[in-house]
Amino acid sequence: MSTYKLHWISGSPNCWRVLLAFAFKGIEYQSQRINPATWDQGDSHFLRLNPRAKVPVLEDGDTVIYESVAIMAYLEEKHPDVPIFGENPAQSGLIWQRIAELIHYTLEPVYELSRLLMRETALNDIDHSNQLAQNISKELKIIDSQLGKTSYIAGNKISAADIYFYPAVAFLEKMLALPATKHIDVNFYPMPDELPALSSWMCEIEKMPGFEKAYPPHWRDE
Amino acid sequence: MSTYKLHWISGSPNCWRVLLAFAFKGIEYQSQRINPATWDQGDSHFLRLNPRAKVPVLEDGDTVIYESVAIMAYLEEKHPDVPIFGENPAQSGLIWQRIAELIHYTLEPVYELSRLLMRETALNDIDHSNQLAQNISKELKIIDSQLGKTSYIAGNKISAADIYFYPAVAFLEKMLALPATKHIDVNFYPMPDELPALSSWMCEIEKMPGFEKAYPPHWRDE
Repeated sequence: MSTYKLHWISGSPNCWRVLLAFAFKGIEYQSQRINPATWDQGDSHFLRLNPRAKVPVLEDGDTVIYESVAIMAYLEEKHPDVPIFGENPAQSGLIWQRIAELIHYTLEPVYELSRLLMRETALNDIDHSNQLAQNISKELKIIDSQLGKTSYIAGNKISAADIYFYPAVAFLEKMLALPATKHIDVNFYPMPDELPALSSWMCEIEKMPGFEKAYPPHWRDE
Repeated sequence: MSTYKLHWISGSPNCWRVLLAFAFKGIEYQSQRINPATWDQGDSHFLRLNPRAKVPVLEDGDTVIYESVAIMAYLEEKHPDVPIFGENPAQSGLIWQRIAELIHYTLEPVYELSRLLMRETALNDIDHSNQLAQNISKELKIIDSQLGKTSYIAGNKISAADIYFYPAVAFLEKMLALPATKHIDVNFYPMPDELPALSSWMCEIEKMPGFEKAYPPHWRDE
């Protein structure tokens, strides 16, 4: 049995990217799926694993790693045979640069607007939601333009930057299908019309090895 | 002459950590110091290097990398002999985890309050500044407590997590010396009294190889 034990929640982009990394690299793990509806975030065993009470968390024997990007870096060190952080310094540097750009510029407004839509609070402060949509638009258009030049986020090979980004944008796209979106100034939906290169890239990612295995199980039935 | 050309601004924490990484690893580079007072951020040559018009930027022949953490990862790949991202997967995973925690929880309020103090606008919205101070306090106390157990941010060896964090906290400490701080609810200053383990760690970092070389030159004369 695999020594890896992964604590995760279905549909969480932070968990999903770790599941994608496992599946893409073909690594087996023991699944510790958490039901968010009944999860006791004050559980003392879990807090010993991650004092911030967040998923994903990876246990590997006595080693415990949390933060999705750190788990991905850990898996890369242990399983370098299917690389996701590049095969030379220039590739590796570009992949980390793209991940840093996603963290610093793109994902915060993406997550915030997605959650406001999911919790049906996006119309409580419409100016704020419009501002988020504007920030997302700017970033997604930069990425769409990059994806017009290279096949993937950090060049012409699939990498950790794609695995990092895909779940966030898939989560956003799912939330944009909710009715509240009509009342927000969103100029990037439907995505295939407004962000053609980004949408083609999403289709490519959906064909990657392990994609089906990592797909959020509770989304399959919807 | 070194093939590395580094574009940087004195006192910018994002640049300073790259200077520290270069100095700690003992790598030479051509310095392209930018004067922020006269910098044209719309300069087309610079925008070709980094379309976001931000420093630091590293040129290495035809390879261009921006985002400080990506430059650090690039240097690690090229110069692994003085490692800063660990010597085994567990160390590497923990270092990336700490950096991710710093990015997601600690540095945003640290940078924002530091900049408000620097620009003398911290008292314009005192509730906001107090909220930032409270968020910083919570995070610095977590780190102070960790530094009571291990010598460095990610264990008992100096790593990229220390190099990532030090410039941000040194910048904050410098700004907290400004008079406006007295009007904000800051319970972590003077740091040696309120965060003893963090302050001892700062003294240790100040003894690291290359620290003097990387120190912001325009701070020396103040």
